Amino acid sequence: MTAKVRKTATKLADGRDFFYFDDSPEYVSGEKTRRLDDPRPLTDRFAPQTDAEGNEVAFTGPIMRFDALTGDWIPMAAHRMNRTFMPPADANPFAPAREGATYQDGEIPDTDYDVVVFENRFSSLMQVPGVPDEVTYLNGNPLFAERPAAGRCEVICFGPKLEENLVSMGEERMRTVIEAWADRTEELSQLPGIEQVFCFENHGEAIGVSLHHPHGQIYAYPFITPYTQRMLLQARNYRQRTGRNLLSDVVAAELESGERIIAQTDHWVLYVPAAARWPVEMHLAPKRDVPDIPSLNEEERKDLANIYLRMLQAGNRFHQREDGSYVDLPYVAGWHQAPNSAKDDLRLHLQLISIQRSPDKLKYLAGSESGMAAWISDTTPEKIAQRLREVWK
Amino acid sequence: MTAKVRKTATKLADGRDFFYFDDSPEYVSGEKTRRLDDPRPLTDRFAPQTDAEGNEVAFTGPIMRFDALTGDWIPMAAHRMNRTFMPPADANPFAPAREGATYQDGEIPDTDYDVVVFENRFSSLMQVPGVPDEVTYLNGNPLFAERPAAGRCEVICFGPKLEENLVSMGEERMRTVIEAWADRTEELSQLPGIEQVFCFENHGEAIGVSLHHPHGQIYAYPFITPYTQRMLLQARNYRQRTGRNLLSDVVAAELESGERIIAQTDHWVLYVPAAARWPVEMHLAPKRDVPDIPSLNEEERKDLANIYLRMLQAGNRFHQREDGSYVDLPYVAGWHQAPNSAKDDLRLHLQLISIQRSPDKLKYLAGSESGMAAWISDTTPEKIAQRLREVWK
Repeated sequence: MTAKVRKTATKLADGRDFFYFDDSPEYVSGEKTRRLDDPRPLTDRFAPQTDAEGNEVAFTGPIMRFDALTGDWIPMAAHRMNRTFMPPADANPFAPAREGATYQDGEIPDTDYDVVVFENRFSSLMQVPGVPDEVTYLNGNPLFAERPAAGRCEVICFGPKLEENLVSMGEERMRTVIEAWADRTEELSQLPGIEQVFCFENHGEAIGVSLHHPHGQIYAYPFITPYTQRMLLQARNYRQRTGRNLLSDVVAAELESGERIIAQTDHWVLYVPAAARWPVEMHLAPKRDVPDIPSLNEEERKDLANIYLRMLQAGNRFHQREDGSYVDLPYVAGWHQAPNSAKDDLRLHLQLISIQRSPDKLKYLAGSESGMAAWISDTTPEKIAQRLREVWK
Repeated sequence: MTAKVRKTATKLADGRDFFYFDDSPEYVSGEKTRRLDDPRPLTDRFAPQTDAEGNEVAFTGPIMRFDALTGDWIPMAAHRMNRTFMPPADANPFAPAREGATYQDGEIPDTDYDVVVFENRFSSLMQVPGVPDEVTYLNGNPLFAERPAAGRCEVICFGPKLEENLVSMGEERMRTVIEAWADRTEELSQLPGIEQVFCFENHGEAIGVSLHHPHGQIYAYPFITPYTQRMLLQARNYRQRTGRNLLSDVVAAELESGERIIAQTDHWVLYVPAAARWPVEMHLAPKRDVPDIPSLNEEERKDLANIYLRMLQAGNRFHQREDGSYVDLPYVAGWHQAPNSAKDDLRLHLQLISIQRSPDKLKYLAGSESGMAAWISDTTPEKIAQRLREVWK
């Protein structure tokens, strides 16, 4: 980790991991330290529970079922979850603790922070001590395999203020976020049974974000996701056929054509892929062939902080309304990192997608997309790239 | 086709195919016939076009690009489309022609109809005469393959009245719809280059339906869709391992367990799949092992008309508001039919999915679903099945 960021680990009252990633000089130097204790009266999240008949039952965590028709693992809401203590509905759980308060309404022990990461409270992926990661069969039938959803969901808060957004926080903070992504990817990849780590950000009400505090998420999946499976198949076939890395050649081809390139820095290329499927789609790839965020060097991380923010800013100028104002682009920005078992096949890249078709129209995932996973685009990659170049600063 | 439905083929003014599927006795008997001419001043849809410089250019239709990273074909908006004649924005293009009018504001030549099917006017899949179905390379690069999107998109209108819905049209009309699906599947499967036919219905504003006239769609894809590819892989592996058909065994397993069965008729089973991924999901499968709708026999079609409508009705009682009223369930109902090249591997079934999580909450496809195609369910299949059995009539 860069010397400019300091990580401090603690645990929340229910036992979840919590990490401060500080870039404020007084915390980096150690002159000041973060508050570590969480005085909330939370039950240990793995504690036994009481069922409807008053019996004590073990907490078993979420499960996932194998979809025999498609080969997908589907994590599902746990049958029992400890939800004994709920914050008031209007509270912002990601706000720093109020001065002098007993921190009853949020997740953050300290009264201020830079970047924090912690395990999601109501997690759909969870490793529960004592629950073996074994396949069992629902109804005793081999077609109905299920397993604990033994992964992990973490939340990353980009800053302490509700009204801020990552896009306007500046390169230093972005750099801290990158350090946090690298750190979490590295640590989560080492947990037993984890296949891949997905750092992503959902932004905007149009894609269902209900918590407006600037934050992203980090999922550690105990399986290789269907999208990654498809990418691996293509990358392996390509390597077998040509001896080369597929994404390296795609990036080279994009650079050679130039038609869909939005911007470049010394170490990164931002482009609209030749087969873009969303109304707005950008891929951000390092020029060097690296499998994941932890493999990025100092210079690449610094450069990334710059182009990542400019990418978000360009997105926010993509759709202009008739009155001249711009649409705050709803988006999903997700990092495709090589899974643990395929570090040589996949290459790191970010995919930013948006369902915003025009200032007042969204793309809906209807029959073809939801039923057949067959995307149909209403525009062309060249038009998207042209617009993004127009608004690039 | 059953003797109770009569098909009459015609062409719209721009050359598109148009079919009446009639169940009214006077049309079935031939006593009355449908109006065939469409007097709208539409340009032939394949006619050459004039570009910005006033030059005449050939109409080439939509294309699709190969996504080298995932292996998906992505159809895209055509570079040039004939849109010389546009109906007024507030017109209902699926309404029957007005008596005595010159039919300028809609697609239907006659002043009344039962069920009609016609090629979509602004189609993202289209077979254009004279355009060879060949792969070319964008920017001359083998990584950027493109091909004409040489498929077909058809619209099916379930009845003449804007304010009606399929769910309340009755079994006779539903039976006519089934005949139309069977007819179109059979004919479209025989077009050159078509790999599979997808009959589906999008219902509700929540999934983006803007045309409220009761209608569905039929896509003939010139490729095997990603979802079907995944299903084929599983089905073929299963057959290799066991010698048996996967979906047949899944249906048998569901019947044996009974836990997720919603209803049965003599020929059909309706159940929530053991790995349901949507807030509401139902699968409707014939008890006999058939690859597609055309293979259904008389009794199976009759039975289907009954259970299909009861399935939609149950969906409309799934979510009840506090005031006692029910949510008109937004849904996608799509038929998985075996592709032309794999009639022995896939087995016919309908998948009905809804993003409605509660009376006032939708599921959004955010990071995990949109970025990684990894669905996470907030409920369990058993809870969905229990609720559907409660409201079943």
